[in-house]
Amino acid sequence: TVNADRLWESLEEMAQIGPGQRGGSNRQTLTDADAEGRALFQAWCEAAGMTMGVDQMGTMFARREGTDPDALPVYVGSHLDTQPTGGRYDGVLGVLGALEVIRSLNDLGIRTKHPIVVTNWTNEEGARFAPAMLASGVFAGLHAQDWAYDRVDAEGKRFGDELERIGWKGEEEVGARKMKAFFELHIEQGPILEAEGKDIGIVTHGQGLWWLEVTLTGKDAHTGSTPMNMRVNAGLGMARITELVHTIAMEAQPDAVGAIGQANVYPNSRNVIPGKAVFTVDFRSPDQGKLDAMRARLEAEAPKIAAELGLGFSIEPVGHFDPVTFDETCVAALRGAAERLGFSHRDMVSGAGHDACWINRVAPTAMVFCPCEGGLSHNEDESITKDWAAAGANVLMHAVVETAEI
Amino acid sequence: TVNADRLWESLEEMAQIGPGQRGGSNRQTLTDADAEGRALFQAWCEAAGMTMGVDQMGTMFARREGTDPDALPVYVGSHLDTQPTGGRYDGVLGVLGALEVIRSLNDLGIRTKHPIVVTNWTNEEGARFAPAMLASGVFAGLHAQDWAYDRVDAEGKRFGDELERIGWKGEEEVGARKMKAFFELHIEQGPILEAEGKDIGIVTHGQGLWWLEVTLTGKDAHTGSTPMNMRVNAGLGMARITELVHTIAMEAQPDAVGAIGQANVYPNSRNVIPGKAVFTVDFRSPDQGKLDAMRARLEAEAPKIAAELGLGFSIEPVGHFDPVTFDETCVAALRGAAERLGFSHRDMVSGAGHDACWINRVAPTAMVFCPCEGGLSHNEDESITKDWAAAGANVLMHAVVETAEI
Ligand SMILES: NC(=O)NCCC(=O)O
Ligand SMILES: NC(=O)NCCC(=O)O
Repeated sequence: TVNADRLWESLEEMAQIGPGQRGGSNRQTLTDADAEGRALFQAWCEAAGMTMGVDQMGTMFARREGTDPDALPVYVGSHLDTQPTGGRYDGVLGVLGALEVIRSLNDLGIRTKHPIVVTNWTNEEGARFAPAMLASGVFAGLHAQDWAYDRVDAEGKRFGDELERIGWKGEEEVGARKMKAFFELHIEQGPILEAEGKDIGIVTHGQGLWWLEVTLTGKDAHTGSTPMNMRVNAGLGMARITELVHTIAMEAQPDAVGAIGQANVYPNSRNVIPGKAVFTVDFRSPDQGKLDAMRARLEAEAPKIAAELGLGFSIEPVGHFDPVTFDETCVAALRGAAERLGFSHRDMVSGAGHDACWINRVAPTAMVFCPCEGGLSHNEDESITKDWAAAGANVLMHAVVETAEI
Repeated sequence: TVNADRLWESLEEMAQIGPGQRGGSNRQTLTDADAEGRALFQAWCEAAGMTMGVDQMGTMFARREGTDPDALPVYVGSHLDTQPTGGRYDGVLGVLGALEVIRSLNDLGIRTKHPIVVTNWTNEEGARFAPAMLASGVFAGLHAQDWAYDRVDAEGKRFGDELERIGWKGEEEVGARKMKAFFELHIEQGPILEAEGKDIGIVTHGQGLWWLEVTLTGKDAHTGSTPMNMRVNAGLGMARITELVHTIAMEAQPDAVGAIGQANVYPNSRNVIPGKAVFTVDFRSPDQGKLDAMRARLEAEAPKIAAELGLGFSIEPVGHFDPVTFDETCVAALRGAAERLGFSHRDMVSGAGHDACWINRVAPTAMVFCPCEGGLSHNEDESITKDWAAAGANVLMHAVVETAEI
């Protein structure tokens, strides 16, 4: 088994970098805090005897050699970047849990036939640069690298420029690595495991997603002297479409969700009727047909709401992934490990997107979840226990070692 | 009559300071651009032979002496500050129109018995620091000066600190000046005069206003892995209250308006259910009973909407004025001037708040409007013609001269 205290201390230490305002983390991708977190992770990897590789998307690959130099490596990891008001464990547990697997193998003097590569994927969150899981998406061939470089943040800064600025643009071609398998440990980010008192979730599927950005164009005008019937109020249009998104999600129950996360009106002044509104819709379902139907309904009904108010309307997809079915052999390795270690477990669908969802397209992949308190994530109050973290890392270690062969 | 070309050139020159992005103005109160605009105005006033006084709220008073040193001065002016995406004429026409009155009296060699004081009130817009008409409100005894100094902008900067920073905090006690009368020329900011082909609006009344700031508190959570029934979505609450505000205003027709101008969700990230929403409601009516009833209905129904969604709710008034009835003698002076000069005119209610609405409480006051294209204001595309501006300034001059006595 892993060293639970050491894992916990590393989680605590990483959380000192890019601290949030209420105990969480703000280590958004390609910020100075991200660079600092990467440097700490690199130092830890080198101390554990690994060699670091960095690809042109900034993804970090720390390699522990196997006994067979020709054997395909087993990859294991997640991401170190966070939401602007994120928790300490979302992604971080998966990277530092993987590092702990290596440290524990070192302690135990265990060598595997296949190399093991601990991975930190760049920009999983997508909070600063949409879409989420950007680097693993380029790795899996979903996005062109130049397109990824051209993503801009809210201030208009390019991903490619920021990657260079923080000094983490590597030389290595993205996606060139071949993997025997990829394993990712993550917190559930939902309430199911805790509610059912389960130690471990074996992730068999992942939800699909559509991110859609809507722009409504009205007319800035004085809130006092513009008669009600002369208004072209983009804020009112945004309100009605927010309600529509909620209705679409509720009517697609069970196994579907929908919400608006980002919402901005312009010029955002107390006595100006909003002349423009820009907001993003997030629809998800494990059922491809349902997912596409939610998007289609929004695209059919939202323009009518806009037209009734005299508003200009445009909608653009800014992120997408299909529902995912993980690799049976990898899933079985995780399930078998949980079983052998005596943890209570259940199969489940991932509500969130993960790098594993993209990597599943180019290598046998699976994920293991541990519970998080109240199902809370993307929140500074995100919280897990040391035991939950250790259970997840132990299941990960056993499945990785089985796959990497002793 | 005034020199229309000179007035127009001064309007153009002032618009070069704090230019907007689409031809309008962004000269928000107590910014560097505001300071620059003030300096230009001061230079113009001094060139026209006036002496500048500045009070502790930064309001500028440029005095032209009368023939009777003991006679109470006639005040005339408006404001030079603008919305973040404001027009070139809202407020500015009233200040530079008053300056043009003095320049024209100089050209014509006319001296009045009563001094005339051209005034630039600080922070009329209220866009950066709520409430609107802040300095005239302190002048009229509505707000304590220390309370005004403690108003903060979106970045947390204090009004008092910013006033000092730009170097326009005067020595003079606020409200100490006694006025024979106050006149304000302003663009209508609404569509009525243009629609009816009238040159001049004689403002007999002003609408009352309530600005209310609502805060909804939910729970930041992951948009993908949080089941619909576990969400506490502050953005959805804001949408429903936006619709409620619209309904309240529509059901109070005619003679009432309502909208949400400022709307913010937090953390404003694509894959986070908003855990907080803060937004401002603007209700107005010339009918005091109706105005208070709109506020009361919101305060009764909005908490229910919040409670249904499990949201915390708080509401706070951040601006208020009662409906206003302007002084009959001043109104008659303006109406008589319009009549004598042969302009088509009509009596009207001001939809917007103005410094004149506060000053009306401490001195005989009235306002004159000129049309603006499409009724558009608080918009960079705000537009008027040189003839409209000149007609307004001419009516102002005649009423001011009559009141200041030759
Ligand atoms: N796990 C996670 O939060 N990923 C970010 C992408 C998503 O919103 O699902
Ligand atoms: N005239 C004007 O726009 N004043 C600002 C205060 C208000 O919103 O009415």
